[in-house]
Amino acid sequence: MTKPFQDTLTTSNELLTRDPLPASQKIYIHGEIHKDIRVPMREISLSNDTKLGVYDTSGPYTDPSVEIDVGEGIPAIRKEWIAARNDVEAYEGRIMAPEDNGYNTDEQLEFVTAGAKGLVRTPLRAKKGKNVSQLYYARQGIITPEMEFIAIRENQNLAMSKMYLQDEEREKRLRGENFGANLPEEITPEFVRQEVAAGRAVIPCNINHPEVEPMIIGRNFLVKVNANIGNSATTSSIAEEVEKMVWSTRWGADTVMDLSTGKNIHTTRDWILRNSPVPIGTVPIYQALEKVNGIAEDLTWEVFRDTLIEQAEQGVDYFTIHAGLLLHHVPMTAKRVTGIVSRGGAIMAKWMIAHHKENFLNTHFEEICEIMKAYDITFSLGDGLRPGSVADANDEAQFAELKELGRLTRIAWKHDVQTLIEGPGHVPMHLIKENMEKQLEWCDEAPFYTLGPLTTDIAPGYDHITSGIGAAMIGWYGCAMLCYVTPKEHLGLPDRDDVKEGLITYKLAAHAADIAKGHPGARARDDAMSLARFEFRWVDQFNIGLDPDRAREYHDETMPMEAAKVAHFCSMCGPKFCSMKISQEVRDYADTLGTDVESAKQQGMDEMSLTFKEMGAEVYVPEEVIAASK
Amino acid sequence: MTKPFQDTLTTSNELLTRDPLPASQKIYIHGEIHKDIRVPMREISLSNDTKLGVYDTSGPYTDPSVEIDVGEGIPAIRKEWIAARNDVEAYEGRIMAPEDNGYNTDEQLEFVTAGAKGLVRTPLRAKKGKNVSQLYYARQGIITPEMEFIAIRENQNLAMSKMYLQDEEREKRLRGENFGANLPEEITPEFVRQEVAAGRAVIPCNINHPEVEPMIIGRNFLVKVNANIGNSATTSSIAEEVEKMVWSTRWGADTVMDLSTGKNIHTTRDWILRNSPVPIGTVPIYQALEKVNGIAEDLTWEVFRDTLIEQAEQGVDYFTIHAGLLLHHVPMTAKRVTGIVSRGGAIMAKWMIAHHKENFLNTHFEEICEIMKAYDITFSLGDGLRPGSVADANDEAQFAELKELGRLTRIAWKHDVQTLIEGPGHVPMHLIKENMEKQLEWCDEAPFYTLGPLTTDIAPGYDHITSGIGAAMIGWYGCAMLCYVTPKEHLGLPDRDDVKEGLITYKLAAHAADIAKGHPGARARDDAMSLARFEFRWVDQFNIGLDPDRAREYHDETMPMEAAKVAHFCSMCGPKFCSMKISQEVRDYADTLGTDVESAKQQGMDEMSLTFKEMGAEVYVPEEVIAASK
Repeated sequence: MTKPFQDTLTTSNELLTRDPLPASQKIYIHGEIHKDIRVPMREISLSNDTKLGVYDTSGPYTDPSVEIDVGEGIPAIRKEWIAARNDVEAYEGRIMAPEDNGYNTDEQLEFVTAGAKGLVRTPLRAKKGKNVSQLYYARQGIITPEMEFIAIRENQNLAMSKMYLQDEEREKRLRGENFGANLPEEITPEFVRQEVAAGRAVIPCNINHPEVEPMIIGRNFLVKVNANIGNSATTSSIAEEVEKMVWSTRWGADTVMDLSTGKNIHTTRDWILRNSPVPIGTVPIYQALEKVNGIAEDLTWEVFRDTLIEQAEQGVDYFTIHAGLLLHHVPMTAKRVTGIVSRGGAIMAKWMIAHHKENFLNTHFEEICEIMKAYDITFSLGDGLRPGSVADANDEAQFAELKELGRLTRIAWKHDVQTLIEGPGHVPMHLIKENMEKQLEWCDEAPFYTLGPLTTDIAPGYDHITSGIGAAMIGWYGCAMLCYVTPKEHLGLPDRDDVKEGLITYKLAAHAADIAKGHPGARARDDAMSLARFEFRWVDQFNIGLDPDRAREYHDETMPMEAAKVAHFCSMCGPKFCSMKISQEVRDYADTLGTDVESAKQQGMDEMSLTFKEMGAEVYVPEEVIAASK
Repeated sequence: MTKPFQDTLTTSNELLTRDPLPASQKIYIHGEIHKDIRVPMREISLSNDTKLGVYDTSGPYTDPSVEIDVGEGIPAIRKEWIAARNDVEAYEGRIMAPEDNGYNTDEQLEFVTAGAKGLVRTPLRAKKGKNVSQLYYARQGIITPEMEFIAIRENQNLAMSKMYLQDEEREKRLRGENFGANLPEEITPEFVRQEVAAGRAVIPCNINHPEVEPMIIGRNFLVKVNANIGNSATTSSIAEEVEKMVWSTRWGADTVMDLSTGKNIHTTRDWILRNSPVPIGTVPIYQALEKVNGIAEDLTWEVFRDTLIEQAEQGVDYFTIHAGLLLHHVPMTAKRVTGIVSRGGAIMAKWMIAHHKENFLNTHFEEICEIMKAYDITFSLGDGLRPGSVADANDEAQFAELKELGRLTRIAWKHDVQTLIEGPGHVPMHLIKENMEKQLEWCDEAPFYTLGPLTTDIAPGYDHITSGIGAAMIGWYGCAMLCYVTPKEHLGLPDRDDVKEGLITYKLAAHAADIAKGHPGARARDDAMSLARFEFRWVDQFNIGLDPDRAREYHDETMPMEAAKVAHFCSMCGPKFCSMKISQEVRDYADTLGTDVESAKQQGMDEMSLTFKEMGAEVYVPEEVIAASK
């Protein structure tokens, strides 16, 4: 009966995308406080014999020196760190039930799980009386290995930027506008600790997910991007499910939410967690609903609690929990154009209406906190009333819930539980800033995590773009993580190409936000690209970009010859006339005005500029003037 | 020798895309001041027996009742209006030279032009001492047919919005932020006249392009989008070249710039103009450069002037002229990362460097104005020093040129010549607003027309999106027209799919800007879409969207059956659980709290909401309370 999995396991690792990106290799940077930490970075080799380091979310998959077997999982890099803190205990966890996978009998369950035996671990939890959250450690003044790892990781850009284009005037002119954020010149481990301690940033890292490469979500760090994945209707192998996560992280997903429904979701989650280098988030109410056969009114606190423990033991790093939606908020949505569009919100609304009772996620919130802190799971407080159309943006219902999320944040913090706040949705451009401002105020700067927002409703098929606009803007205003939207939004389920399209769109939006808010060194990659452009290093342009494959493919369509990759012109002007070539002549011209390359060049230009200004607009500049200014 | 054209002409009309968009038909609205004007609108029939009117740039091509032969051109709807003003004269125009088409001999010329005989017209110009610009008329207090046409066209949204979702609270909540613009509640012909008279808006409409359907570009109107097209290396038929323009207008191009280079550009321009319902712009220096064999230093005022007359007589509606780039600006670019990236800017810089002379476009500016006003051609004052990387944004060179463009604007206005100002380029998000503010200040609110701007340099292959973000933002801040960018930007020449992708991206960006700045009724189409979403009218969702074909295709991929198009669920939640369905239940629930549908519903909700608040968060609501509130 276990055959389908055994058969495929032997070959299924081949389904994983494991080639490094073009001209790239994985390097690792060691820690100073914690000597054993190795922070991964992707190093791109350029044709001018320089290298460019970029933030790398792809984990060991793009390191050919690491052997990976999806049936065993990737290396557990945090295992020793967790053990060394001496505050966790292994225990015999919850016994898996057939309904965890959507079945009625043990026999069916055995069939499903047999292939995943190598991926089941003995769970850890906090020892009695202990709190194992990064927020707890941070408040105790402890710089964990996770924190130092993150400091090195976030700082890569700064190191990079030192290679490029240092220029005082330029730095001053381009300095970001950060709306009161606290971006430092350099990100130190102590700064990471402070931000986590203040609740302004979270490090999602369940102690049962030791495979995770630590990352941080907060407004004073790089803007992060989440990708959603779901299980296939017919699962044929572990690698097939794992590959969705691998593919997402290859294109920059900082976290992945597993929104699987239906059959085999427990086992699929094991597969993904044991093989994921990025934090995994879930919406536990989805699985709880499956356990009561999809009937919202049959949900109980007990079923939900059991599901939390189940997923906590597996290693889920953050839970979306719609605890802020209250009974008295529900009627506020009746006048809306698109009512309640959040699935979690609709489930809880339905439950509340059916029972005329307050949301049990709210009434049991402190009990949930107890679970969260025993595993270091981060709250992602769901916005069940997020607007589903621009018409419903920033309405009474949305903001009433947001205010309640702020109250819950303070309760979570009392328990030292890390907390994210989820946000919209559909919001016209002029109302985006109000979302960010109210969130910062009401939720005491807990990191904001938004879905887009979409800035218009009229472009189905292009909602990665309608939302990418809003995402870039809210990222600039201070949003810490952006949940991606694919071109299939509102229409269907994304395929592999859609996932990539959505991710690249969101990575460029997040990066545009990093530049605008002034993350230290964020612009280094842009400068490397622009220099490559100016110098007609075509292959470098492809490789520096977010999607080297597409850039090369598009260039090939117009100029397929290999010679064109070193040509000193582009398809716009062609070889006969080239703007970039003229710019070189302009530099030479400027050079004729001065002799000392380092200083007189600028001086000469200033003089010349002044001379021309003095002589008015219609002047002919005699050769003598040029000669005199040399 | 004329055979290639004669052969293809008989069938080439079939190359034109002429199907109306799905469920759409062309309707025409008549004028009141000018009874003979017929303003086109696309009317989409919805499945709930309502109709949605949308702004339509596609001209007669989507009206099956109009017979079109590309060898003859489309109907000249403005012909009578122009004649009625009694201020123009027909004259024997400039004699076409072989070099206009890039040839050396008359024989080659004859070969090229033979197929276009039916498209050559006798040119018109202003009678001696007359000024035929819309700006001149506006300042005289004259409401031209063009102005009334535009008022009706721009107002369509308002009419539409009256059909949808009137709600005081919602209108107040969503009211746009317009940064000091002057958007009226309703756009009247007199308002159009005032805006044109103030120079805040332009109506590009050469008297030799009577085929144009009048449109307006200004910050108090809908944000417009321009698409660039170029000629093919091997031209095989008129229709093939015309189809590029037709395809662009089908997907929403409000104007089209013909950036053709190389052979046959004069003739291609005739083909496009005689068949184009939208204004056509060009960069005359490109053709002038061809005439001197691509050697910038060989350019002369005489060659340029002759090219202006040539294109003026053909009917080009607006000219990009890089007259603001001065000799003393050139050295300011030497320190830049990407120097001069504007082709026109580079041409003029090269010329100035070679001759050590001031830009002849600047020194002859008033003579150019004389030509412009004799045909009513609109200036699009080019930004030859626009930044080519975020590193170069808002620098000394860029702003020095912008200031000079302001000075030129005032000269142009002295001649009653309509004027647009071109803008960047590559600008990080936090520096976009400064561009708009300086432009408004220095150019006295002349309409701004930007290329993007791109908000990061690191995503070649996705620059329609990096720039779509900047375009939406600057459109909101007050930019009047956005020049589209395709996915092939920086990499190669766009194909048909790229043109569409770029256009839809820019239409959604322009629309997001219209909503945010509060164009009257802009949100009506969003509301129609959102209602269709809430009511699971799938086919309506496809048809209301900017790209009905893609929306349907994407939906088909997940749920191909025709039954799914009327299914009351989507692929996200599936039939078992559906957020939208729950929202309907919420409404029913709210309804149980009141009896009078019109008022008590809200009252009931408010009471209920209050009751719940009073009872605190953990309350169980007894049946009696529900009953009591009924």
